[in-house]
Amino acid sequence: MITEILATGDEIRSGSLADTNSAWLAQKLEQAGLEVTRHNCVGDDRELLCEVLKEISKRADIALVTGGLGPTTDDLTSEAAADAARVELVLDQKALDSIENYFSSRNRTMPLSNKKQALIPQGAETIYNPVGTAPGFALKIGKCLFYFMPGVPSEMKTMYSEKLVPHMEKYMGKNKVFNMVKTISTFGLPESIVGEMLSALPEKYPGIKLGLRAKFPEIQVKLYAKSTNEKDLKENVHLACQWIAEKMGDRIFSTSEETMEAVVGKLLKKRNAAIAIAESCTGGLIASRLTDVPGSSDYFLFSGVTYSNESKIKVLGVKEETIKNFGAVSEETAGEMAIGARQAAGADYGLSTSGIAGPDGGTNEKPVGTVCIGLASPEKTETHRFILRFASRSMNKRMFAMKALDLLRLELI
Amino acid sequence: MITEILATGDEIRSGSLADTNSAWLAQKLEQAGLEVTRHNCVGDDRELLCEVLKEISKRADIALVTGGLGPTTDDLTSEAAADAARVELVLDQKALDSIENYFSSRNRTMPLSNKKQALIPQGAETIYNPVGTAPGFALKIGKCLFYFMPGVPSEMKTMYSEKLVPHMEKYMGKNKVFNMVKTISTFGLPESIVGEMLSALPEKYPGIKLGLRAKFPEIQVKLYAKSTNEKDLKENVHLACQWIAEKMGDRIFSTSEETMEAVVGKLLKKRNAAIAIAESCTGGLIASRLTDVPGSSDYFLFSGVTYSNESKIKVLGVKEETIKNFGAVSEETAGEMAIGARQAAGADYGLSTSGIAGPDGGTNEKPVGTVCIGLASPEKTETHRFILRFASRSMNKRMFAMKALDLLRLELI
Repeated sequence: MITEILATGDEIRSGSLADTNSAWLAQKLEQAGLEVTRHNCVGDDRELLCEVLKEISKRADIALVTGGLGPTTDDLTSEAAADAARVELVLDQKALDSIENYFSSRNRTMPLSNKKQALIPQGAETIYNPVGTAPGFALKIGKCLFYFMPGVPSEMKTMYSEKLVPHMEKYMGKNKVFNMVKTISTFGLPESIVGEMLSALPEKYPGIKLGLRAKFPEIQVKLYAKSTNEKDLKENVHLACQWIAEKMGDRIFSTSEETMEAVVGKLLKKRNAAIAIAESCTGGLIASRLTDVPGSSDYFLFSGVTYSNESKIKVLGVKEETIKNFGAVSEETAGEMAIGARQAAGADYGLSTSGIAGPDGGTNEKPVGTVCIGLASPEKTETHRFILRFASRSMNKRMFAMKALDLLRLELI
Repeated sequence: MITEILATGDEIRSGSLADTNSAWLAQKLEQAGLEVTRHNCVGDDRELLCEVLKEISKRADIALVTGGLGPTTDDLTSEAAADAARVELVLDQKALDSIENYFSSRNRTMPLSNKKQALIPQGAETIYNPVGTAPGFALKIGKCLFYFMPGVPSEMKTMYSEKLVPHMEKYMGKNKVFNMVKTISTFGLPESIVGEMLSALPEKYPGIKLGLRAKFPEIQVKLYAKSTNEKDLKENVHLACQWIAEKMGDRIFSTSEETMEAVVGKLLKKRNAAIAIAESCTGGLIASRLTDVPGSSDYFLFSGVTYSNESKIKVLGVKEETIKNFGAVSEETAGEMAIGARQAAGADYGLSTSGIAGPDGGTNEKPVGTVCIGLASPEKTETHRFILRFASRSMNKRMFAMKALDLLRLELI
């Protein structure tokens, strides 16, 4: 069944508001076995609205429309729907009662303008609003069944879940198609390489569509699959995931859309281990990410954000000669920072960064993007040096922090 | 000029990702004097993409397309554009050079698959990418000039601002209407109160449209104005800004879209003063925000992210009795943390936070949202206690960090 979404309203059209309704609906429809082929958006313009409804009616079997059912003069969706279906608007007494009831149950008198919301295109089936004043309605235009819903996200979501899902299931009958979207989060390889590594997937698993998404600094591998047989679908996606896991190994850090910090947190908790951080170039970002995870106080003890050399020496116990001989950005300093953080906090692991996030401060020998990372564990201390340069200081910081967290993850697994 | 936007990609179509690019572009186009009539979205489907491009080419004068220019097999926008324009794809040697250069400047070899990105529809004008590998291009299909851009928001935004704006201005010629959008950043008052304070503005300055935008945790006051006379426009907006400044006083922290951390950084630099931070509940976020600002090493010395009581005592010199008597979340502890950070780093100012970001850990006396902030300066130490509770741990952290930075700002001005 071809399914489309139409978002209406000037605030979406003009960009004052990002259209989150359509993304929410697309996900829900996919779960319900309907693949959305197109999203559309127009403003509060009766003629244009009518035109778009007519276009959709020729292409789609089911369409979901949000917005424009309110009481004000710029709410024009019912009018446009009636125009497109070539019918009149008629008063739905039951809808009017329910709107009046909405106000009276709140000890308020219904403003006259709300009466407009009970006007429904002739032949439409009213869908009563469980949580607001604007009723929705289902209306067939051409071959397409349109569902019209309010644009307020909370009202729309409740109406969709409580009213539309059962209505659509009845309408679709036995043609139900099951959909599945699986996300595999990877780090450490550029998108193009991941694409090359997995290029044989479409051939090996014909029912599965592969998508790559750069969610800087991670690369997400997405699998889209559908089938009329739910068991086959799950089995097929499971096999494809296994195949990807064999290809990509420990470059995969999550198969359930967790963040890197959540994964690292879980590993620390499992090992009953505590972590301390020493940050120079990442400026507190590693600590901030780790402490975004609820319950992180169980394993996160301390981070020393030591920008100045004095604080590296005083707080972390880095040797003055080390900085003098090798520089603050060096594997030697990073190693002593990691050891110092670990000892200062009495932690099991110490993780450190020292580098040049830019835009200035680079040299020929140590260009912008240079980062030294130290990792001190109960057994040993290891240090690394990378050049990871991206478009901005903030992107470099995010990449440095991710790289450090990933090294810790690899140590813990 | 009729303008449309097309977002492409399965992650948008399927709702895995909300389409923020289109909202951003619609706003920018409005500022450039172009009103968007429609948004469209389709997935990675060459045939459907071609169909939508042909439809848009019949309706619009200018169209902006995002996504599908990457190196992998599901990136199909160039192919679809060529199909719609009935031309072939040809290799743009300069684009290939620029992609190769992108990799070689990072000491990496260009993966073979990236070569695909240099294939541009015949007759298109290549738009080189200042920050990534995927070049964009401008191509006329029918009466409509299409601009094709990468879907990664940072690349798209840079390409739009640096390359498309001048290109479109040249294309539009003299039909130019001058637009101005002025943003005034405020902190500390809820949106509804700001709205009431400024409610007389539309009457006092008729040519100016007022918009409020909650960019958590700040509230931005936006002034939209347009005129064919650039001088009048500027003068009118200037007067309106003065009027707002009188109403809102030091609640305004920037009139040039600076971040709070950039404003605080400038003030510290102007006073030639250095800062050290002691963070408990904000977990490194204050340090990370301060060090996002290029050149912050001039005034930022150190942050002790002290989650454990031991590290508060050991690193910051907080007295054990203080924590025992008043608790880690107390004005007393926050005060000693601020003093401790200042002394440990030899800084002029010390700023501290201790609080409960949630979701757990609250008590009747100290509920989730409680934050104690200390500010130690050369002259004195002051402490504050607030209850600032929002929908999530991460929002609470952001609010706490902003509140602390704002207190420092008010001390410095």
